[in-house]
Amino acid sequence: MLEQQTITLQTNGRATIEITREVEAVLQSSDISRGLCHVFIHHTSASLIVTENADDNVQHDLENYISRLVHNGDPAYLHDQEGPDDMAAHIRSVLTQTEITIPVQAGRLMFGTWQGLYLWEHRLQAHSRRLTVTINGLKD
Amino acid sequence: MLEQQTITLQTNGRATIEITREVEAVLQSSDISRGLCHVFIHHTSASLIVTENADDNVQHDLENYISRLVHNGDPAYLHDQEGPDDMAAHIRSVLTQTEITIPVQAGRLMFGTWQGLYLWEHRLQAHSRRLTVTINGLKD
Amino acid sequence: MLEQQTITLQTNGRATIEITREVEAVLQSSDISRGLCHVFIHHTSASLIVTENADDNVQHDLENYISRLVHNGDPAYLHDQEGPDDMAAHIRSVLTQTEITIPVQAGRLMFGTWQGLYLWEHRLQAHSRRLTVTINGLKD
Repeated sequence: MLEQQTITLQTNGRATIEITREVEAVLQSSDISRGLCHVFIHHTSASLIVTENADDNVQHDLENYISRLVHNGDPAYLHDQEGPDDMAAHIRSVLTQTEITIPVQAGRLMFGTWQGLYLWEHRLQAHSRRLTVTINGLKD
Repeated sequence: MLEQQTITLQTNGRATIEITREVEAVLQSSDISRGLCHVFIHHTSASLIVTENADDNVQHDLENYISRLVHNGDPAYLHDQEGPDDMAAHIRSVLTQTEITIPVQAGRLMFGTWQGLYLWEHRLQAHSRRLTVTINGLKD
Repeated sequence: MLEQQTITLQTNGRATIEITREVEAVLQSSDISRGLCHVFIHHTSASLIVTENADDNVQHDLENYISRLVHNGDPAYLHDQEGPDDMAAHIRSVLTQTEITIPVQAGRLMFGTWQGLYLWEHRLQAHSRRLTVTINGLKD
């Protein structure tokens, strides 16, 4: 069985947003109880990660770390039409993930106790972001 | 339905090469119209990324960024049999992707407007690179 | 056909461990000969990579590189309850992979000559790590 849905999420500018619940909702709207759930983001300046969802400081530290690793407005960038965060956003996306697959069992995403799925908005401004969720599996 | 093909691509040394069209060609040679398309590179010194394909400066800036992040010929490297770019190529591969999955709808890769799939050659010399494309899905 | 098994592996503290053989064993316990094999790690302070498995110096150099890129005990970290390697482990995980998919042909993982799958323990202490292997494919 194959289920495929495209969803749109609003961001509030540069930050991570947990989207585990939104992807679980797509999974639960399908009849698939066992298999794989693939999440793809249709953008090159926002990305996906799986990380700890218990302590908000993790999100703060991830953003702080990557903003020191990838500078906004680096004078070496040739690509800067959309501002100092434009090329930085593409680099941050390439160093993280455009797509992530999660195993499904008993109709649920098989995340570990502390795992959550996050959309990482890399642009400074708020954006509307499209994701496609594809679930491939069986109804047990 | 499952389609699996291995293709070989030539690189011209360290640089990104867009391979969206080559993967689309495999997809179109199958009868699958909806599902997932998985691309795997059988090497540890070349990798895959999804990034912006409208402005060539993005490719220039990505290469420039990663070559400053991962130095050729770092005296700390123990693994240097094949030259100063050998270990740097393995690190660059680990920081990016060996495999990427893209959703398929209406027989096409569901890329966003500005997204393209790139092979990133991390060695300085030209190489022949093998990729396996696996498409799993349905004919609508 | 769909096969899904969860396995547990012991680590000895911060280092990479090759797990190609353990994943091959799951594949061989299934009847699937062609398709895709997905490996997911249920943790946020250990991750997966595909890299060269011929020269152990590659593993040494990867660990040395990332420990210089992501500092233990950085005073900027707010998240440090479990010690100086806690937040560093989350960052190292985000810069590598939580899940990897490998094509399957003739009942084997289709790795290139020099490729191996590694679990990367990012905590200093030994841990028990859970992974789920999901194989989706056909019996030829």
